Amino acid sequence: MLHLNYLRSMIRVVILGGGNVAYHLTNQLLTYNTIDIVQVYNRNIDKISYLASKVSITNDLTKLKNADIYIISVSDDAISKLSAELNLKNKLVVHTSGSVSMDSLFSKSHKGVFYLLQSFSKHREIDFSNVPICIEASRPNELLLLEKLAKTITNNVYNINSNQRKYLHVAAVFVNNFVNHLYHVGSDICKKNDIPFEILMPIIQETAAKITTLQPIDAQTGPAKRNDTETIEKHTTMLTSNQREIYTLLTNSINQTYGKKL
Amino acid sequence: MLHLNYLRSMIRVVILGGGNVAYHLTNQLLTYNTIDIVQVYNRNIDKISYLASKVSITNDLTKLKNADIYIISVSDDAISKLSAELNLKNKLVVHTSGSVSMDSLFSKSHKGVFYLLQSFSKHREIDFSNVPICIEASRPNELLLLEKLAKTITNNVYNINSNQRKYLHVAAVFVNNFVNHLYHVGSDICKKNDIPFEILMPIIQETAAKITTLQPIDAQTGPAKRNDTETIEKHTTMLTSNQREIYTLLTNSINQTYGKKL
Repeated sequence: MLHLNYLRSMIRVVILGGGNVAYHLTNQLLTYNTIDIVQVYNRNIDKISYLASKVSITNDLTKLKNADIYIISVSDDAISKLSAELNLKNKLVVHTSGSVSMDSLFSKSHKGVFYLLQSFSKHREIDFSNVPICIEASRPNELLLLEKLAKTITNNVYNINSNQRKYLHVAAVFVNNFVNHLYHVGSDICKKNDIPFEILMPIIQETAAKITTLQPIDAQTGPAKRNDTETIEKHTTMLTSNQREIYTLLTNSINQTYGKKL
Repeated sequence: MLHLNYLRSMIRVVILGGGNVAYHLTNQLLTYNTIDIVQVYNRNIDKISYLASKVSITNDLTKLKNADIYIISVSDDAISKLSAELNLKNKLVVHTSGSVSMDSLFSKSHKGVFYLLQSFSKHREIDFSNVPICIEASRPNELLLLEKLAKTITNNVYNINSNQRKYLHVAAVFVNNFVNHLYHVGSDICKKNDIPFEILMPIIQETAAKITTLQPIDAQTGPAKRNDTETIEKHTTMLTSNQREIYTLLTNSINQTYGKKL
């Protein structure tokens, strides 16, 4: 009986995909003894061959094994097509994308979303215990199953519908992709003037740390906020035309936010 | 003799100003027994009255005491005027500004700069041990004195000339002021869609942490970098006109950086 209960409490998972998210998610799920990765699929099997000693791998969709959850973790534009190629009926099929709606999944499956809101790079370890997982499912009992899976991995589980998720995704583009690009601009300015970029590291870390206790709108400082036109004009003469465009647009945006016209 | 040596090794400092940097710097310098804050000046004495029990305070420039270093920590546009009003000859006078050149100080003084590159807020504690201090001085022995003072406070001391410093300052505007504004845009999008902003906190922290081991140019991810025009077009339809302008400009800038035309 104990043995049976133990088996019943295991969540059986098939992962489909071999990119960064699939890579990190697979390796993480392999660490829990309450989760059974019964199979990993990838069109190009070489990309997942490193898993062969640990789990069953395949590149043949007709040979998918039985599982409780099928997690599609491929590029956004391939999700719909792959879900339609799965020869599964009445099975829970979820994707891991921020910007693709749940309904993009093929209609013969039960649908769900399992979105890990983090920036994954192949060679960088992530502490999964605080990675937010945003879940969505068409059936309440399957939402509970996704919640159980998510809570195994992290303390931060959120019910987020498809409409909210697409806004969350674009917000993440601002605070991750665009922020990193501003780091690049800062780094570029340093390089061109023989300044070690490391000098900016403490202020970069403090800027991110500050908003854990303050709202960003209350944490704002600098010439744009205090409408210091003299410094702003000095700065714009020092920049390349591309940097100047960014500087001017963001300065105006900050000014508008605080109700001051330049 | 011991006593005399001890006195000689003390650095006597007068601080002029009552803003955020002056506030944090004064409180920090008060913690070292190798530094003697002989006086704090502010035009409005009420703003520094909290210091009265610990140091001599004044709002009268004719009563400045004798010291090794006079640190002017006032707003950028007040530095030059205040330095000219000091009745000091052949004394080391430094300012703490990122964007004001050393030569803006009045010529009867020996000049220097003591620039703390961090974002200071009144109610937020800062770990000074890693705050970068950028020093500059017109005389070598005074540069050594500034270095001694700076090294008392932090492990990160840099010799940065006035030209480099102004570029460092504009770079800091990109990685601090503008980054914080992007946090605000992300927060705004969340608020309008009933999404807790805290969901974005782990990716914000990871974005800042990532560039401690990777160059920003190597850490870049997202639709702009991979030229995912479908997602980019979807995103632009979801934004306010101000957000869309920022989105489009930064997306184009990322594309140019990675050599892909949209």
